[in-house]
Amino acid sequence: MVNPESEDLSATLWRTVYQTYTRFKNCMDQILKEQGLTMEQYLVLVTIKYGNAPIRITDVARWLERSTNSVSMIADRMVKAGLVRRTRDKGDRRVVRVSLTNNGENTLKPATPANWEFIQKILSLLSYKDKHALASLLEMLKCEFLGYLNPEVNMAEIIKNSVTNQPDLYERMVKNIFPSGSEAKRQGGDKRKTKKKTE
Amino acid sequence: MVNPESEDLSATLWRTVYQTYTRFKNCMDQILKEQGLTMEQYLVLVTIKYGNAPIRITDVARWLERSTNSVSMIADRMVKAGLVRRTRDKGDRRVVRVSLTNNGENTLKPATPANWEFIQKILSLLSYKDKHALASLLEMLKCEFLGYLNPEVNMAEIIKNSVTNQPDLYERMVKNIFPSGSEAKRQGGDKRKTKKKTE
Repeated sequence: MVNPESEDLSATLWRTVYQTYTRFKNCMDQILKEQGLTMEQYLVLVTIKYGNAPIRITDVARWLERSTNSVSMIADRMVKAGLVRRTRDKGDRRVVRVSLTNNGENTLKPATPANWEFIQKILSLLSYKDKHALASLLEMLKCEFLGYLNPEVNMAEIIKNSVTNQPDLYERMVKNIFPSGSEAKRQGGDKRKTKKKTE
Repeated sequence: MVNPESEDLSATLWRTVYQTYTRFKNCMDQILKEQGLTMEQYLVLVTIKYGNAPIRITDVARWLERSTNSVSMIADRMVKAGLVRRTRDKGDRRVVRVSLTNNGENTLKPATPANWEFIQKILSLLSYKDKHALASLLEMLKCEFLGYLNPEVNMAEIIKNSVTNQPDLYERMVKNIFPSGSEAKRQGGDKRKTKKKTE
């Protein structure tokens, strides 16, 4: 039997996660308007720049954990806007890679400090302890979501590689994710690396 | 001078908020696929159903804190899919309102328990105390984002109406949001209700 108070809190939390992200995105879109970018476009630009450009669209999508199709659409608009250029892979002419144009580089340059200033300002509201607690709690949800999306991967390995330096978190998560009796999966199991869903 | 460790943590937190939401959306999209819906479409359906339908698109957008333009595009596809119908406002023929078709109602019916089951399962990982802490911390960020998007509104009022029943939170937020010297704004100021950005 579920505690009704806990059920209410779960509904509140679900709504709060949605609203927090939506407002966060709206803030980012507003800040980046000055550079003529949306948050989505900014993330694609950053991923291209730091993702060993020229990079394949499928790899940009994998990094951003978005579908290849949606990243392709964003990239198409950015090619038209002159921010991104397409090139053919030297080894395999069928593969399309993307890199930043000079215009893309110049657009990205002021966008990052503007974003960063905003993030710092907003997060200054939280104490170091609060930030740590928030990052750890979200990390737990994030890993659970990943486990749901990729039931074949070894969750213990994912968690181990992604916990935010909180000593007891790994134990807590393993305890919650692997109820007693599933020791085999916890200790051995599939050793494949995390495969992200890219469709 | 910013503490470099705290700066790292802010960057981690920023990335974690993005990843948590993206994976959450990917999970929801996967669950709702069975009903032929995306998470965005589901949210629009729910808002139409419980938002005193027939409802104006601008009101759906306001509830979801999205731009009217993006909600219009989602609704257009749903009209084509036979889930939503458009009607003219009786008082003002220029205003378009939307409501669910029978098909929309029947699609929505199994989607909500499917979603809810997933949310409960994922959140069962967190203790009641963890859930409460997470909701409260996100609530703080959410209010900060709203204040950034609507600098003209009375933040004290927003916070008071939205804190998640944590007695000391209001005080902590007011203290952080209104540094000493801005007592006037805190106590009096603009009494307008929260106007959400709908563009």
